[in-house]
Amino acid sequence: MRLNILGCYSATPRTMTNPTSQVLEIRNHVFLIDCGEGTQVQLRKSQIRFSRIKHIFISHLHGDHFFGLPGLISTFRLLGREADLHIYGPKGIKEAITLFLKLGDSWTNYKLIFHELEQKEPQLLFEDDQVQVSTIPLDHRIYTNGFLFEEKPLPRNLNIDEIRKHNIDQSQFNNIKKGVDGESDDGQKIPNVLLTFEPKAPKRYAFCSDTAYNENILPLIKGVDVLYHESTFLESEKHLGSKTKHATAKEAATIAKKADVGTLILGHYSTRYKSIQLFKAQAATIFENVVLAEDGKVIEI
Amino acid sequence: MRLNILGCYSATPRTMTNPTSQVLEIRNHVFLIDCGEGTQVQLRKSQIRFSRIKHIFISHLHGDHFFGLPGLISTFRLLGREADLHIYGPKGIKEAITLFLKLGDSWTNYKLIFHELEQKEPQLLFEDDQVQVSTIPLDHRIYTNGFLFEEKPLPRNLNIDEIRKHNIDQSQFNNIKKGVDGESDDGQKIPNVLLTFEPKAPKRYAFCSDTAYNENILPLIKGVDVLYHESTFLESEKHLGSKTKHATAKEAATIAKKADVGTLILGHYSTRYKSIQLFKAQAATIFENVVLAEDGKVIEI
Repeated sequence: MRLNILGCYSATPRTMTNPTSQVLEIRNHVFLIDCGEGTQVQLRKSQIRFSRIKHIFISHLHGDHFFGLPGLISTFRLLGREADLHIYGPKGIKEAITLFLKLGDSWTNYKLIFHELEQKEPQLLFEDDQVQVSTIPLDHRIYTNGFLFEEKPLPRNLNIDEIRKHNIDQSQFNNIKKGVDGESDDGQKIPNVLLTFEPKAPKRYAFCSDTAYNENILPLIKGVDVLYHESTFLESEKHLGSKTKHATAKEAATIAKKADVGTLILGHYSTRYKSIQLFKAQAATIFENVVLAEDGKVIEI
Repeated sequence: MRLNILGCYSATPRTMTNPTSQVLEIRNHVFLIDCGEGTQVQLRKSQIRFSRIKHIFISHLHGDHFFGLPGLISTFRLLGREADLHIYGPKGIKEAITLFLKLGDSWTNYKLIFHELEQKEPQLLFEDDQVQVSTIPLDHRIYTNGFLFEEKPLPRNLNIDEIRKHNIDQSQFNNIKKGVDGESDDGQKIPNVLLTFEPKAPKRYAFCSDTAYNENILPLIKGVDVLYHESTFLESEKHLGSKTKHATAKEAATIAKKADVGTLILGHYSTRYKSIQLFKAQAATIFENVVLAEDGKVIEI
């Protein structure tokens, strides 16, 4: 799993910083998460092929997470896209995008499929044999979801030496990979654990932005390998966090600690701060494994 | 008059090029013309103070002229703007912007005044004692206007030596600046031409993008000091111009020549071309005084 931070600041695009957008490469998928203004250019800088994106997840309809979407959809058309594009986002997103296309008489030549969200309970959005994506309801000024991206368990790896030793027929391989015991040519039962190695553990990534400090998400993100949690403010501006339903670095770290996650990535920094190093310092007083998101950074999960 | 080219390419924002946007500084005004995605960042790069913009003119509702507007309007709010903002653009622009604000529950704390356009005849949009702005109806795939920006004549400059020589009383100065003859203290009439110098001639700038070759605009832009005329294509792609209602460099030059303008600025280049030098070369076969727009370029008029 590889996370490309395209933009990780709040509010407005600036010369050197971009509003929220990420690309998660997970198994055979390239998922775009949020799409602030400038996402297209950040995608180009990151050399991510536009055509690989087939699913876009929008957390909420504030501009810094969403205003790059009409342009990206238009660019897909101009690039001659034919593949379906799935967009998951709050109710209203379809009307907004459709109106912008209509005003420009610029209908897409590919199929645009909207999955509008309005549930306040966690909800499965996408699933295939490799991954699944579900919502993490967040607590923000408007209806907002985070997203939980989960790899599905891989088949077990065959231990070829043991397979040969016990003369296991090839017709059993698929079942053995699924965990079924084997049978040797003389009818002896061979425990699966002898015939296979543990596959790589499936990874889980949780994206939680924008949100106030909210313990309701703990059971949903419990033990994820990586948690991206917004931290718009430092302690000195904690009062603004309560007012605008944003979190501080320490609050993000508290969530990370209580949920026992592997790594915490901080982002969605207010543009009022000249340096982001204090975010890490303040979070690290509570939770050790903290990474600062930065535009253009690639994080291997 | 000073023209800041923020973006001058068609279609999509890219790493090094931006879609259409310009800032015209004219007398005491700072007018924003079109607002493709990325305009905010280009404004910052050009060090133009956001608060100085009070009027935004949108030619048409294709993304490369318009998709930066919702974000700019939001940013004005975040910057604490209080001054009114006037937006002139095709009918539908109010619904589009209003929907985006509504979805984010992000109403502006300043007054947003829409002037929706649907006339196909030239129309006066704005006028004060310094300048006036009117539409130039263009020929594009959707309803599109160019804009004619005109300085009003300045008062005549007093010739202080002659004023003194003829003992002209100060109470006459305002009238004399307007062209009225003077009267000396012995009752003698002094022709205005003796008492004043010609003021700087008022300048006119015409912005014409997007449009097919269209001679109907000639009477409107006759003799302007500077014409910005789109030239999306080179001669080799002229057939695409007819199809998409865009002009070639040669067509833009033909318009410039027939309208007897001072300088022609070319822009709205298709992103298919690696270099824009051929645009100038092809236009120069027809019209001599050609300038190539480039993102970030400042052109004194």
